[in-house]
Amino acid sequence: MSSRHRGRGRGHDRGGGRRGGGRPSSGGQKARSRSGLGGDRVEGRQARSRSGLGGDRVEGRQAVRELLLAGTRPVHEIVIGAGQNRTGALAQIVELATELRVPIKEVAMSKFESMAATEVPQGVMARAAPLTEHDLDELASSSDGRPPFLLVLDGITDPGNLGAALRTAEGAGVTGAVLGRHRSAHITPAAAKAAAGAVEHVPMAVVAGIPTALSRLAELGVWTVGLDTVAPITVYEMNVAADAVALVVGSEGRGLSRLVRQRCDIVVTIPLSGNLGSLNAAAATAIGCFEVARHRRTAGSRKPAEPASPRGSGR
Amino acid sequence: MSSRHRGRGRGHDRGGGRRGGGRPSSGGQKARSRSGLGGDRVEGRQARSRSGLGGDRVEGRQAVRELLLAGTRPVHEIVIGAGQNRTGALAQIVELATELRVPIKEVAMSKFESMAATEVPQGVMARAAPLTEHDLDELASSSDGRPPFLLVLDGITDPGNLGAALRTAEGAGVTGAVLGRHRSAHITPAAAKAAAGAVEHVPMAVVAGIPTALSRLAELGVWTVGLDTVAPITVYEMNVAADAVALVVGSEGRGLSRLVRQRCDIVVTIPLSGNLGSLNAAAATAIGCFEVARHRRTAGSRKPAEPASPRGSGR
Repeated sequence: MSSRHRGRGRGHDRGGGRRGGGRPSSGGQKARSRSGLGGDRVEGRQARSRSGLGGDRVEGRQAVRELLLAGTRPVHEIVIGAGQNRTGALAQIVELATELRVPIKEVAMSKFESMAATEVPQGVMARAAPLTEHDLDELASSSDGRPPFLLVLDGITDPGNLGAALRTAEGAGVTGAVLGRHRSAHITPAAAKAAAGAVEHVPMAVVAGIPTALSRLAELGVWTVGLDTVAPITVYEMNVAADAVALVVGSEGRGLSRLVRQRCDIVVTIPLSGNLGSLNAAAATAIGCFEVARHRRTAGSRKPAEPASPRGSGR
Repeated sequence: MSSRHRGRGRGHDRGGGRRGGGRPSSGGQKARSRSGLGGDRVEGRQARSRSGLGGDRVEGRQAVRELLLAGTRPVHEIVIGAGQNRTGALAQIVELATELRVPIKEVAMSKFESMAATEVPQGVMARAAPLTEHDLDELASSSDGRPPFLLVLDGITDPGNLGAALRTAEGAGVTGAVLGRHRSAHITPAAAKAAAGAVEHVPMAVVAGIPTALSRLAELGVWTVGLDTVAPITVYEMNVAADAVALVVGSEGRGLSRLVRQRCDIVVTIPLSGNLGSLNAAAATAIGCFEVARHRRTAGSRKPAEPASPRGSGR
């Protein structure tokens, strides 16, 4: 188990997925697929004790449907609460699972609810192989000609916020996400549900320390842009978004840690016009990621300009 | 009770608040301040049955602190779970409540948790006068020379999403929010907690029907911009954001309803670059509201241009 998150083979390409599949995938999934669906509601603790990414339990209709649609990892079982109308997303889930020969187990709704780890599991859950961890170096290299666009999450502890951030990042075209191994939420059932399937599409790396990861990204030619409540320039003025870039978002309460802020090439802020002093981490991620996406759209419609050197300006 | 949401007095200005206070406030708050803190966890049902805005129970440290700081409505009581370190936000809450002579009740943590309506109440809750409803016409008129910037929420049913949307909207400088009376979340304890105090600063109107409200806003000279997954132009191309504008966001599952979409002057979309087909409603609200804010910042730095007429182009 401890071998999973270090020295992963850069080996075989499983080539799954509808789009954006074909990233190198590590082996060794079976060793961690035995946790089962029952019981433990202390999901944060459960996921962290494994020190991997998690993701082996998925609840909620959008998340389970996307798990089956993406086809990027083995799905062992679908569990459905009895007595639901099999329409809409649930009908699609049953159809996909049947097509893919994934066993469907129907249990009484009261039993289903006692099995579920999230508050509103929407009558369906899945047990799957855990998500594959990727190397940071791998995420920093372009897979399809587009410059990498990474999201680095510095200490987000709320699984719902983590999942929401990943969902929005996926929509903005993020090509990879970096999570800290300690004091951070991983892909618990609540995170997977809030991500609504984004975890199937965004390759993720889990790193021992975010500051070290930022130094490595700089070595690899990726601009690191910290998002904080106070900064010399606004998010609208960053001029590196069209290059290889990593957006670094801090925790819900404290923002970027001191060392992380120091390691960022530039630090930008989202200007606020109201009375409150901060945004929720998932909202800040949404605004930051889509601002990078907007920059890239604009840059795509004119010839690429040499960015003014921001390296060091945020220190 | 039923007189609260119709024919409100345009009466006395209570002039509270740190900034942005001084909006006309209705009377009649006392009639609805008796619900108490105990027991009922079915918060959605409880709030809806009153058909007002709600907001008389606030849980969570940021939300309670902001309730006291804003000073825009009477606070009857603060309840704190025993045995917590009174540091940080909790220390500020105790200090503010003491200063404002709001009674502080300390109860055993087990009792506190049974009283709480939200999952993670963070050891503190408040009982306050319900939020004041505002007239739609009032929200559509400029209070301080800035053109109004409204957020219209068409059928958001999840209180957490509603609160998160209001918090982000407040940060973007929204001057008012419009909620539907039926089939929508109101300011339940979960919504107030997620809003982290934004409900104290964003004046809100509750309307019988969103389509009728949009027609009225058009009569009052407010451009109505619908945000949907499919639209002829992107959110980056809307050219009315610097004028009086209302951003209309649909529900989590279905987006804008047909009639609402038809009534909007223009419909814009947030272009997605990933595999998933939609954004969470709170994330879409964040991106849309901050795009309006960005337009306004840009418009503020050059002379105001005559917007091309978009009226009718989205129909």
